Amino acid sequence: MIEPLKLGVIGLGRAFTLMLPTFTADPRIQLTAASDPRADARERFAHEFNAKSFEDAEALCADPDLSAVYIASPHQFHVAHVKLAAKYGKHALVEKPMALSVAECQEMIAAAREANITLLVGHSHSFDLPYLRARAMIRSGAYGHVRMINALNFTDFLYRPRRPEELDTSQGGGVVFSQAAHQVDIVRLLAQAKATSIRAFTGNWDAARSTEGAYSAQIKFADGSFASLTYSGYAHFDTDEFMGWWGELGQGRDGEASYGRARQNLLKASSVTEEIALKNARAYGTSGSDAFRIDGEIAHNHFGLVVASCEHADLRPLPHGVMVYGDKARHLDELPAPKIPRAEVVDELYAAAISGTPPLHSGEWGLATLEICLAILEAAKTGQEVELNNQV
Amino acid sequence: MIEPLKLGVIGLGRAFTLMLPTFTADPRIQLTAASDPRADARERFAHEFNAKSFEDAEALCADPDLSAVYIASPHQFHVAHVKLAAKYGKHALVEKPMALSVAECQEMIAAAREANITLLVGHSHSFDLPYLRARAMIRSGAYGHVRMINALNFTDFLYRPRRPEELDTSQGGGVVFSQAAHQVDIVRLLAQAKATSIRAFTGNWDAARSTEGAYSAQIKFADGSFASLTYSGYAHFDTDEFMGWWGELGQGRDGEASYGRARQNLLKASSVTEEIALKNARAYGTSGSDAFRIDGEIAHNHFGLVVASCEHADLRPLPHGVMVYGDKARHLDELPAPKIPRAEVVDELYAAAISGTPPLHSGEWGLATLEICLAILEAAKTGQEVELNNQV
Ligand SMILES: NC(=O)c1ccc[n+]([C@@H]2O[C@H](COP(=O)([O-])OP(=O)(O)OC[C@H]3O[C@@H](n4cnc5c(N)ncnc54)[C@H](O)[C@@H]3O)[C@@H](O)[C@H]2O)c1
Ligand SMILES: NC(=O)c1ccc[n+]([C@@H]2O[C@H](COP(=O)([O-])OP(=O)(O)OC[C@H]3O[C@@H](n4cnc5c(N)ncnc54)[C@H](O)[C@@H]3O)[C@@H](O)[C@H]2O)c1
Repeated sequence: MIEPLKLGVIGLGRAFTLMLPTFTADPRIQLTAASDPRADARERFAHEFNAKSFEDAEALCADPDLSAVYIASPHQFHVAHVKLAAKYGKHALVEKPMALSVAECQEMIAAAREANITLLVGHSHSFDLPYLRARAMIRSGAYGHVRMINALNFTDFLYRPRRPEELDTSQGGGVVFSQAAHQVDIVRLLAQAKATSIRAFTGNWDAARSTEGAYSAQIKFADGSFASLTYSGYAHFDTDEFMGWWGELGQGRDGEASYGRARQNLLKASSVTEEIALKNARAYGTSGSDAFRIDGEIAHNHFGLVVASCEHADLRPLPHGVMVYGDKARHLDELPAPKIPRAEVVDELYAAAISGTPPLHSGEWGLATLEICLAILEAAKTGQEVELNNQV
Repeated sequence: MIEPLKLGVIGLGRAFTLMLPTFTADPRIQLTAASDPRADARERFAHEFNAKSFEDAEALCADPDLSAVYIASPHQFHVAHVKLAAKYGKHALVEKPMALSVAECQEMIAAAREANITLLVGHSHSFDLPYLRARAMIRSGAYGHVRMINALNFTDFLYRPRRPEELDTSQGGGVVFSQAAHQVDIVRLLAQAKATSIRAFTGNWDAARSTEGAYSAQIKFADGSFASLTYSGYAHFDTDEFMGWWGELGQGRDGEASYGRARQNLLKASSVTEEIALKNARAYGTSGSDAFRIDGEIAHNHFGLVVASCEHADLRPLPHGVMVYGDKARHLDELPAPKIPRAEVVDELYAAAISGTPPLHSGEWGLATLEICLAILEAAKTGQEVELNNQV
């Protein structure tokens, strides 16, 4: 018998709906309490999971029943919510991006250390099993050193319904905070040395949604290897085409039928208020949410095209494994389809909370990724290469 | 009736074999003479085309029968051969890269101008019809301004049989001279402003073939747009997978059967001399060459994955047209399969030589591309961003 981890949730929004299939299917998790200013979301949660709900995040953290909290509130609350978790001795799994500044991340790490709780940053797509497998292959040395990494992701991120602060860079808006956090995490995971500097361009091409919607960044590593990262959240072309039309969440997609849907859907909102309502319709609440269930066959989560070029193979993580393009032959190193999506997040959280295993996606890890995201913004703004000082 | 252009060829190597299907099929070209130090290549040419042959390039250029020469000798001879063509009043189509330095390019341009001949640089893949079509679409303004361009090409370039100077950067070896020349040309063709600076990394990962085999470069344009270019000539993964397994030359490929072939084939050569012999076996000569004919259906030539992101569409040139991923719908803007491969090169050469139409791929164009290739090498070496001064 598995002793489940009693988990409290702060923020019942879109991110929560994406983790919900994991939390409900995984016997290692017991959804015990939630906090959100939206009453209808709290009500539905309390009813659906026969659980407690709190208007206030601190009240939730104070609940002696809980041993861990999942913090899925908007970016700007991450620092305060992690500090609350620490104050009440709860392990904290905080959504990416970890926070909005390096100083905030340092505060969070210090608070966790003093309280002797474990701090994890995620879900991020670097938890996805195919990337972890590719990392293990690289570290095995079987294919020689990794020399170059390319990551390319084209999505309609900017045209999904957004809260105003999600389109305001100063409040953590734009694709660098939200999406580079995934892509940088993956690239760091595969690299064999610390990142040392960043060069980048960002694109802000739609005055009606004025924030970074695209970027192209180069990362230099201490061992002389390098990476090129490109993201477009303005995209029309969709890199899921290169992933056999398996989506970011492991869902089977119909590339034809879903074409242009985000832009089309957004036309329904003619004001900020209407757009928030559209966003909340995808979040958790009594009106229902569209992403609670993933029906049918699922594959592994992914974050677009990634190719790690080693001396003796190119490794390409895919929804069903890792394609190993070797010197003589290529083969798919197959991974069974996941029974529970994103179970890797629970693997790490559970091991940390129950057995005290230090997590890969620690506070220090999250800080290092955020430092690169901030460096992308700075490099693009100043046109200068930005040195990194907080890599692990 | 078309008056054919009487063409002389300098250098009957691999490049010539790739243009041969074009020259023999296109009624606008009459192969009239050739020059090459290899006697068996000259003999075969004279016999096969009932044409003249010269041991010496100057004797060929002096032949009053010719009106143009195609210069497909190794890079380091391009400057001398273009000057010979100019000296004898022949139009010159010179292979990419135009030369090894900006100064050489300037000499070539000056010589052509003084002699009042037309200088064209090509074949390069920016001649390929799908890129020209994408350029026309962008210039039409129908999709808004182009904001970001991504180009990614993974091949086994470094493991094809090579002459020693092809693996020596100081003599024009490596993928920056030979392959960036294509990729940069394409990106410049699609951009709507002049390139202003370059940042780059290069990879030199195989001590047995010590030159740049890979690069990752960023180009900044005067209008704020940017491009990311990645090339790996060490590749195991092959971007033709994204082109429906149509190859660079428009040939249908069997991705499975051809896997690893270049590395396998190269094992046959255990010395530099043996490798040169392997290379010449693919060139033109009495022993026959494998690429003279392209059998079966052909598609347009291409140079890997290219996506030009405009405000209202992503444009993706493909072997059978341009995929237009628009705001509401996507469609393939289809191009009929070519009857003659690379006919676009003859289009431009013929129009220039017969009607005096200034070519797109002029000497100034070729110089601008070479300046970027040299900037990639310098940026990678110094770690500094390199400003450009010769863009057109
Ligand atoms: N890993 C992923 O795949 C993923 C996906 C989406 C979002 N996220 C991350 O999750 C976080 C939330 O984003 P989202 O898209 O879910 O936003 P959202 O607006 O859909 O959800 C935020 C939720 O937090 C609630 N909230 C606001 N203030 C709160 C407070 N003080 N206390 C408790 N709850 C509060 C809101 O009412 C809302 O329900 C962001 O940091 C985002 O980057 C991660
Ligand atoms: N556009 C393309 O697709 C493409 C493809 C391959 C090569 N190229 C270019 O073509 C040029 C030749 O490359 P290659 O791969 O054909 O090399 P190669 O070695 O196969 O051919 C070079 C030929 O030139 C001959 N030669 C050497 N010195 C000569 C001289 N002084 N006068 C006349 N001929 C001479 C050689 O004997 C040989 O036949 C290079 O600049 C290369 O970048 C272009």
